[in-house]
Amino acid sequence: MKVLITGIDGYSGWPLALHLLARGHTVVGVDNFVTRRRVREVGSWSATPIPSFARRRAVVKELFGQEVGFYRGDLERYEFVRDVLRAERPDAIVHLAEQRSAPYSMIDVHHAVATQVGNLTGTLHLVYAMRECSPETHLVKMGTMGEYGTPNLDIAEGFFDVEFRGRKDRVPFPRQAGSWYHWSKVFDSGDVMFATRIWNLKATDVMQGVIYGIRTPEITDDRLLTRFDFDETWGTALNRFIAQAVLGLPITPYGKGEQKRGFLALEDSMQSLRLAVEHPPAPGEYRVFNQFDAAYSVNELAELTFRVAREFGLAPTIQHPTNPRVETEQHYYQPLHDHLLALGYRRTRELEDVVREIFRDLIRFRRRLEARKHVVMPTVQWRLGDSRPALAAREPPARAPAPAAAAGPSQEGSTT
Amino acid sequence: MKVLITGIDGYSGWPLALHLLARGHTVVGVDNFVTRRRVREVGSWSATPIPSFARRRAVVKELFGQEVGFYRGDLERYEFVRDVLRAERPDAIVHLAEQRSAPYSMIDVHHAVATQVGNLTGTLHLVYAMRECSPETHLVKMGTMGEYGTPNLDIAEGFFDVEFRGRKDRVPFPRQAGSWYHWSKVFDSGDVMFATRIWNLKATDVMQGVIYGIRTPEITDDRLLTRFDFDETWGTALNRFIAQAVLGLPITPYGKGEQKRGFLALEDSMQSLRLAVEHPPAPGEYRVFNQFDAAYSVNELAELTFRVAREFGLAPTIQHPTNPRVETEQHYYQPLHDHLLALGYRRTRELEDVVREIFRDLIRFRRRLEARKHVVMPTVQWRLGDSRPALAAREPPARAPAPAAAAGPSQEGSTT
Repeated sequence: MKVLITGIDGYSGWPLALHLLARGHTVVGVDNFVTRRRVREVGSWSATPIPSFARRRAVVKELFGQEVGFYRGDLERYEFVRDVLRAERPDAIVHLAEQRSAPYSMIDVHHAVATQVGNLTGTLHLVYAMRECSPETHLVKMGTMGEYGTPNLDIAEGFFDVEFRGRKDRVPFPRQAGSWYHWSKVFDSGDVMFATRIWNLKATDVMQGVIYGIRTPEITDDRLLTRFDFDETWGTALNRFIAQAVLGLPITPYGKGEQKRGFLALEDSMQSLRLAVEHPPAPGEYRVFNQFDAAYSVNELAELTFRVAREFGLAPTIQHPTNPRVETEQHYYQPLHDHLLALGYRRTRELEDVVREIFRDLIRFRRRLEARKHVVMPTVQWRLGDSRPALAAREPPARAPAPAAAAGPSQEGSTT
Repeated sequence: MKVLITGIDGYSGWPLALHLLARGHTVVGVDNFVTRRRVREVGSWSATPIPSFARRRAVVKELFGQEVGFYRGDLERYEFVRDVLRAERPDAIVHLAEQRSAPYSMIDVHHAVATQVGNLTGTLHLVYAMRECSPETHLVKMGTMGEYGTPNLDIAEGFFDVEFRGRKDRVPFPRQAGSWYHWSKVFDSGDVMFATRIWNLKATDVMQGVIYGIRTPEITDDRLLTRFDFDETWGTALNRFIAQAVLGLPITPYGKGEQKRGFLALEDSMQSLRLAVEHPPAPGEYRVFNQFDAAYSVNELAELTFRVAREFGLAPTIQHPTNPRVETEQHYYQPLHDHLLALGYRRTRELEDVVREIFRDLIRFRRRLEARKHVVMPTVQWRLGDSRPALAAREPPARAPAPAAAAGPSQEGSTT
C-alpha cells in the first residue's frame, strides 16, 4: 500500500516509515521540520543525534535500497496539502504532523493559540484535500488517551451506550482534556468524525497512550535513530526520569505521583498503526482505537527507573516537587482497548526491558544530556499560565518558514 | 454592573446593549464590523437599514442621554483584547463576537478554517486576558443548542449523570455538531470549561436556540433597529420563509421539514442574557444554560409563515427542495432547560405574534428585500462542500482589517 506520513521527521513518523518500508509498503512523507525548531526554542535537543532529513533518506537508500518520497511543506497551507494528495493519492495517510506537547501549549497565550490553530488547520486541510482529490484514502489520525481525561468511569473506545431519562443511544464518550494541546486533539476528533459523516470518508482515530522507547527492529544503525526528547516541555515523564537518573539529578514525579496513564512501546505503536492502515474501515466509517497496553502511575515509572538505574551502577534519588499541572492526582483509570486486539494486535515489548534499552542508549549519549542539563527540571506552571521554560524568554512560538513555492520533493532538512 | 459586549454591532449585541442600558447597567462594546462585510461578501444586506455604529451611538445619546463605550478592534489580536480588559475590568463580558453562520462555514475549506480559527482564537484570547487583567470578570459565552446535535436522548444542560459498566459519574453531555461552525462552538465550550478549572474563572455557557424577531421594547425608533438577515447564508430558516412570502417566492423548508430546533424570541434572549449577567456563578464554576422556549419543526415554521402571510393579503406557496444539509430529518428532540427558569426567566413573547411583527417590518422594508431577491434561495451544498452562494465567486472569506494601532474608543464604523 502507499502510505503518506505527515510529520515523517518526528519521533513516531520516522520509525513508522522504516517499519512500513520493511513490510513492503511504499512510503511518502511530509514535514516542515518545526519540531526541531520548537525543541531548540525551549533550549533543548534530542538526546540521540539526529541526522538531517536528507541524510536520513540517503541512509535508507544506502542500507535498504529503498526510496522515501518526500514533500517539504506546511499543512497550514491548503494548496500544498491539496497538491500532495493530488500527486500521490495514497491508500492511507498517517497524520502525525501536529504540535504534540501539552507543556508547550501551556507556556502562554501565543503557544496555546499556535497549538490549537495549527493542529486544527492541518487536519481540516487534510480532510478537505481528501474530499477534493482522494476520497478513497483512509485517514489514520492521532488522537490521545488524554482527550478523555480521568472520569470515574471505564473509558470506552470512542463511543458508548448510555441510558438517560428512560431512553438509550450510542454517543461519543465525553471528552474532558487537561491542556490546550489535549483539547486541540479533541477538536480534531470532532472535525474528522463530522467529515466522515458528510463526505463518506474513511477514518481511524487513534487515541494514543504515552509511547516509550527509542528503538525498533528496523533501527539497525545509529544513523537511523529516532529523536529522544528529555526536557520538561518535549520529554515524557519516563524520558525525563531516565535522563535525570543518568545525569545524577533527582527523579521528579509531580505531586503525589498517583496519576495514571496508558502506555505503549514505540515498536508496538508502529505495529498498531500498520494494522490500522492494512485494515481500513468502510467509507463513511469513523472508528476509534484506544491504543495502549497497560496503565502505570507516575510513581511506578519513577520506581522502575530507580531500580533499573541501580543495575547500571547509578545512585538515583526520588523527589516529589509540587505538581505544576492542574490534574487529579488520585483517580480511577480503566480504559477499554479491544479494537486493536480484534485486528490481531499483540504486545511484543515489556516496559522494564525497554527502560533498560533506553538507559543503555542514554548512557552512550550522556554528553548530549550533560550539554542540556538545565532543561530537565520542571518550570512551566499551568496554574499561572505564563511561566516559561528556562531558555524561552519571551520568544514567540516557532513557526514553519514559508514553504517552498514548488511543492515538489525536496532534499532539504534542518540538522540536529 | 459594567458589561462588555463583544460583537456589540451584531444582531444580538445591539439590542442587548439597549436592554442593559435601560436597566441601569453600564455598557462597553467591542466590534470589528466583520459581519457587515461578510454579509456583503455573499451579496446580501440587512432587510432593516442599519446606521453606522457611530450613528447608533449618537442616537442612543440623543434619545436616552446615555453613552455606549466602544473599542474598535479584532479579538484575534491578543494585545487589543488585553488592553480593553485592563482598561475596563468589566463585571461581565457577553461574548457575541463570533462567526455565527453554519452555511458560511460550509462554503469551502477557507471559510471552514476562518470560522473555526477565528472563533477559537477570540475565545482563547478572552480567557487569557481575563486571567491576566481581570480574573473577577464573569464570562457569558454563546454556545448553541446545535452543539448537541440530535441524539435519541433527552439533551441535558451541559452535564449529565451516567452509569457505564457499573460505575457512575457526572460528565459533559456528548457533542455531535452538524457544521464546522457548530463544531467551533463545541471547541469554545471545551476551552472555556478548561479555563475555569485551571484559573478559577467564572463562566456561563449559553447553549442558545434559534432567535427570532427584530424588535425589543427599547427599539423605539427606526434608527435603533437591529439587523435582519434573510439570505441563505446569514438568515435563519424562519427569516428566509418570511422574506420569501413577502417577495412572492415559494417558502422552502429543506427536505422532509421535520428537523426540530429550539427557538426563543429576541427580547427573551436579552432577558436571559441579563439574568446570567446579574447572577454570576462562583469562581471556578462553569455552568451551562440551554436557552430556548419551545421546539418547532421547519414545517411548523413554514406553515405558520404561510398562515400569517395570508393575514397580510399575500398568496404564499410552499415547496420542499432537496435538503442541501447533511442532517437527520426525523428525530427525537427533547432538551432540558431548567437553569434559566430557576433564575427567574419567564417567556414573554409568542412565536406567532413575533412573526406578525416581522411581517409588518419586512413589508415596510420590502424594497430592500426586492433589491437582494437573488440571495434568498438555497445554493450551498454541504455534501459537496465547495459550492458557494450565488455572488461569492471564489472570494476569500472577509476578514477584519488590521485594527487601529491605538485601542482607544473610536467613532468609526462601516455603513449598511
